[in-house]
Amino acid sequence: MNFVSDNCSAVHPSVMEALVKANTGFMPSYGDDALTREAEDQIRELFEAPNARVAFVATGTAANALCCAMLCPPWGRVFCHKHAHIETSEAGAPEFYTGGAKLALIGQDDGRITPDDLAEGLITYGRDNVHAGQNAMLSLTNATEWGTIYAPDQVAALAAIAHEAGLAVHMDGARFANAVAALGCSPADLTWRAGVDALSFGGTKNGCMAAEAVILFNGERVDELDFRRMRGGHLWSKHRYLAAQMAAWTRGGLWLELAGHANRMAALLGRGLAGVPGVTVNQPVQSNSVFATLPQAVYQAGMARDAGFRMWPATQDERAAQVSVRLVASWATTEQDVQNLLAIIGG
Amino acid sequence: MNFVSDNCSAVHPSVMEALVKANTGFMPSYGDDALTREAEDQIRELFEAPNARVAFVATGTAANALCCAMLCPPWGRVFCHKHAHIETSEAGAPEFYTGGAKLALIGQDDGRITPDDLAEGLITYGRDNVHAGQNAMLSLTNATEWGTIYAPDQVAALAAIAHEAGLAVHMDGARFANAVAALGCSPADLTWRAGVDALSFGGTKNGCMAAEAVILFNGERVDELDFRRMRGGHLWSKHRYLAAQMAAWTRGGLWLELAGHANRMAALLGRGLAGVPGVTVNQPVQSNSVFATLPQAVYQAGMARDAGFRMWPATQDERAAQVSVRLVASWATTEQDVQNLLAIIGG
Amino acid sequence: MNFVSDNCSAVHPSVMEALVKANTGFMPSYGDDALTREAEDQIRELFEAPNARVAFVATGTAANALCCAMLCPPWGRVFCHKHAHIETSEAGAPEFYTGGAKLALIGQDDGRITPDDLAEGLITYGRDNVHAGQNAMLSLTNATEWGTIYAPDQVAALAAIAHEAGLAVHMDGARFANAVAALGCSPADLTWRAGVDALSFGGTKNGCMAAEAVILFNGERVDELDFRRMRGGHLWSKHRYLAAQMAAWTRGGLWLELAGHANRMAALLGRGLAGVPGVTVNQPVQSNSVFATLPQAVYQAGMARDAGFRMWPATQDERAAQVSVRLVASWATTEQDVQNLLAIIGG
Amino acid sequence: MNFVSDNCSAVHPSVMEALVKANTGFMPSYGDDALTREAEDQIRELFEAPNARVAFVATGTAANALCCAMLCPPWGRVFCHKHAHIETSEAGAPEFYTGGAKLALIGQDDGRITPDDLAEGLITYGRDNVHAGQNAMLSLTNATEWGTIYAPDQVAALAAIAHEAGLAVHMDGARFANAVAALGCSPADLTWRAGVDALSFGGTKNGCMAAEAVILFNGERVDELDFRRMRGGHLWSKHRYLAAQMAAWTRGGLWLELAGHANRMAALLGRGLAGVPGVTVNQPVQSNSVFATLPQAVYQAGMARDAGFRMWPATQDERAAQVSVRLVASWATTEQDVQNLLAIIGG
Repeated sequence: MNFVSDNCSAVHPSVMEALVKANTGFMPSYGDDALTREAEDQIRELFEAPNARVAFVATGTAANALCCAMLCPPWGRVFCHKHAHIETSEAGAPEFYTGGAKLALIGQDDGRITPDDLAEGLITYGRDNVHAGQNAMLSLTNATEWGTIYAPDQVAALAAIAHEAGLAVHMDGARFANAVAALGCSPADLTWRAGVDALSFGGTKNGCMAAEAVILFNGERVDELDFRRMRGGHLWSKHRYLAAQMAAWTRGGLWLELAGHANRMAALLGRGLAGVPGVTVNQPVQSNSVFATLPQAVYQAGMARDAGFRMWPATQDERAAQVSVRLVASWATTEQDVQNLLAIIGG
Repeated sequence: MNFVSDNCSAVHPSVMEALVKANTGFMPSYGDDALTREAEDQIRELFEAPNARVAFVATGTAANALCCAMLCPPWGRVFCHKHAHIETSEAGAPEFYTGGAKLALIGQDDGRITPDDLAEGLITYGRDNVHAGQNAMLSLTNATEWGTIYAPDQVAALAAIAHEAGLAVHMDGARFANAVAALGCSPADLTWRAGVDALSFGGTKNGCMAAEAVILFNGERVDELDFRRMRGGHLWSKHRYLAAQMAAWTRGGLWLELAGHANRMAALLGRGLAGVPGVTVNQPVQSNSVFATLPQAVYQAGMARDAGFRMWPATQDERAAQVSVRLVASWATTEQDVQNLLAIIGG
Repeated sequence: MNFVSDNCSAVHPSVMEALVKANTGFMPSYGDDALTREAEDQIRELFEAPNARVAFVATGTAANALCCAMLCPPWGRVFCHKHAHIETSEAGAPEFYTGGAKLALIGQDDGRITPDDLAEGLITYGRDNVHAGQNAMLSLTNATEWGTIYAPDQVAALAAIAHEAGLAVHMDGARFANAVAALGCSPADLTWRAGVDALSFGGTKNGCMAAEAVILFNGERVDELDFRRMRGGHLWSKHRYLAAQMAAWTRGGLWLELAGHANRMAALLGRGLAGVPGVTVNQPVQSNSVFATLPQAVYQAGMARDAGFRMWPATQDERAAQVSVRLVASWATTEQDVQNLLAIIGG
Repeated sequence: MNFVSDNCSAVHPSVMEALVKANTGFMPSYGDDALTREAEDQIRELFEAPNARVAFVATGTAANALCCAMLCPPWGRVFCHKHAHIETSEAGAPEFYTGGAKLALIGQDDGRITPDDLAEGLITYGRDNVHAGQNAMLSLTNATEWGTIYAPDQVAALAAIAHEAGLAVHMDGARFANAVAALGCSPADLTWRAGVDALSFGGTKNGCMAAEAVILFNGERVDELDFRRMRGGHLWSKHRYLAAQMAAWTRGGLWLELAGHANRMAALLGRGLAGVPGVTVNQPVQSNSVFATLPQAVYQAGMARDAGFRMWPATQDERAAQVSVRLVASWATTEQDVQNLLAIIGG
């Protein structure tokens, strides 16, 4: 039982099996192999984007930072949510890869940015000028850091404002699978058809070992991506093992099946928690995360029994009367895990 | 008549005279000359800091960015005011020179940061961790972007919190002269005795042509400063002409005389504006800037007669019923300039 | 049959088995797991370096670039061989991670740097000065890009000169296993006892999937490594899968067994090639690479039969009378592979 | 008497006079003033390049680094002479401003690069590939670090090879005035007509205080230059004082008059030295520098009498039988200075 993060889960058996299957004989290195071409093609097909540039890396931070570097110059400004992973949890990777861009923090407490937030942000930072730097990019996280989701029309509304203002649009899709599974839309509808220029398509949290795809829907300057990935140290020599993960994970809808399962476990958990006296569920449970406020005694019960969750945000007073926590379900979470947790919490 | 900025003023005659006087014969380049030693020594004496490292550059942005690079690693976070020059007006120079550090924006609408603001900021960003990056530096602007001032005890209170949390303390002193002139304190009291580790000591806005001093009161790693200045392209070959400015400007109290004059002109202007019907002075006039809200008709009168001020912030609706403006006095502002402006404004 | 590079080989079955074995249940992320501690401890033990800082990454370029960033400031100079991987094959990763350091190219045609080369380089670039930048680091590759090897006393002689001049010493050990296997020395003798401060300890080319260890023998500023790895996007969330590779690969001497096999296959190949009329073996075969010059007809025979090697350097005229090639053996190379190649070449 | 460098000279009286003349009243800051427009227009006219982008900075290192950043991506390679200022004397400014590009060192001992040198360099580094990085730029210094000069046809021959290979062409013109004065050609002939894309047009060494112009003849992406200059800290607030220097220096041919004088003084010195027994002049004296090898006794005589020159290169053994030195004439060098030096040297 572990709800600390979906990245505490193991690799899905089908993905591991694909790694074992790929492990035979010699193969050209650095991505010049048939398995890589297959995985890339499969993703282009999935996104109905035959001309998209697809590049694999091992971490979400690498994918996000590379996308930022592709869309934002060193003197640019990235509008993102105040709790976006690129702001709070990447130790400045976007700043490093862009060569010193700025993140401008906007957005609501539910993890989403509204069109008004963006419009207001654009006014605050004014038009591009040599002193203030250049408004260059909008980064949306979907599903968000607070488990909420942008629907295609919400993305489109934001992207329209962004493009009008000259910003490129990035989507941090570390949990893109959870968003698509929840929405039941097509990957294309939630990305390029809604105006997204670049996607960090995350496999790691959803059943892969270490595999993410950078997808550039807009074909400008895509050659830069190769150089940026290489000099970031993110081009695997035994590239087949990145490709094998992505190929297996996107084959036959596995990715959506796993994400849908995680979402259902979170929904189950959310409903359970809402029924526990004194517990408040703080955000609508739209994907695979549940955010709740627990009475101190309940929090302590969870800690004492190693229930597998943690304070969120981390900077709270752990001894307050109420403690807010995050619980994340993954492909590996079972109904029994949820029942066990509720038994501890529900006391 | 020009109140747009103190950097619209000319060079003070004494500084220009010093340049002319320095313009004779050959002299060693890159700072290896007697005039440079004299100017550096004079500044160390002024600050009662015989071991301080003093380095001259031509712009305030260079001074600030070098100070940031000396005090904050690439993965560090600089706490600064939300309207600090390093955030709003340097096109990302601190990010560039640090190698990608983050600015964390805090503070009050009067341009100052309170101890509570800083304490809260430190909680928000938590203790240093590998995901969030390292809290590394506090940057205070004195006088602030809103013309207000930190007294030595206010600086000391902030520096104490900062040092306790492991942050180094920088002061952006583009208008340090105005602050010292207003406070009547010693430069040492407002800097190293109050806990400031590095100062951008600004001459340009106060009568120099292009001359600022980076002063490191803390002697650690000062050799780095030479390399950083050089590779930033900020080491002048004909260095005597930077030194001559700083030597003349700090000699015999000229710097304080000029700043005191500018402060008095701003005070005069502030009092005058406060008496104009419909005009509100928005901040206490503590140094050489006045911030006021004007009725549209008054604003238009000023614009029509080229009264030499501008909207502040720049992103307002110029046709609103009320328009907020900034007016900055300099060493070159005369009482007649103030009277002329009031005549226009006062209708 | 593939001699293009050792990175065309698959993952050794024992390493893959370890990945499968690690793939069970939830585990803390980002390296806070027992498997990571075990792997790190095992490496510290292997190197008889109980206080060394060990950090895992997925690529050799990442390991090298992080070592450079730890040992060389942005204004520093890295002395390295003119054909070092960090110079020729990493698209500027060292420059990126250091923030713009310079590589100074020295060394002999056999891939090694002699003490005289280094001494001469130090004279050429002079003592540190603000114009020229700072001599900061020596990077040795062992085994070298030309398959040759530095023995412990050769490393020590170079490190002594380096340390005397204030340089830190890095070893690019992408093929460190091959060097140790060839020399029969202890890992400690070839590294910290000989004066090496940081090692890129490469597993990928020798049987891992994607696993390298950065080892800092010198404990100064090691906390920086965590921040640098994170912001480089190189901290795996499912860290157990990096650790499992390194643990399995270093357990029970597997790493040396695999490297020793590769070396033997290269020796066999070298001896075979030396006996082919018209073929010249260009470097002593000391590790797992063979460099040879082939008559055009022999080269064509190899190409036509897809013999699995390539021109080296890549910039030769492919139609010249003589063509130079590289052939690399790996843990997966069989005697039959060697015989097959010789049959084609010897044709 | 000082021949150490032309940057030991003072500011020419006409330039200083222009500064004094500009020192009146208020003026818009950051280059939005009439004097700046005049100076820019004057330079465009001088170069017969009405669409060129002209931007002023205070140092040659800043100008060079900005040109590199405009013409070379972070993963790019700059071909330059092994003794180019950007390689030997800027503490890594090009690497800093480009975000980590590499300099590839080529060229002859006379300070020039030949077409063969460049062609060979292009072969050595191969075609652009993701491992090796991208060949992006050629930087020529004219006059060179060894006082020699490229004529327009020599520049054109190199630029043709460069452009064919996809490289942009930069000229470091710290002593461009000396080159033009020596050649008697038009500035356009030596730059854009010969294929130069960007010029660092140096005023400082030739009579200015601290003034250089970045000139981009190719209009692509010129807006970037404003951001890069600002975030480098190189946009002067009191910009009129940069402009006044460049305007006065380029007005009425003053720049060529000063450079021509310096060249003549160097020629006189070179002829004189050539007649001193035991002294060898090592390079053709084509601009304002003389390189000579002196017998130890002569060198000591010069040192003892403070004759104003220095060892070149700086890393020689000062007590060898022969010592090589550099002597640089400037606009301020008099015939008497030359005679005095020859009297000392000639014993």
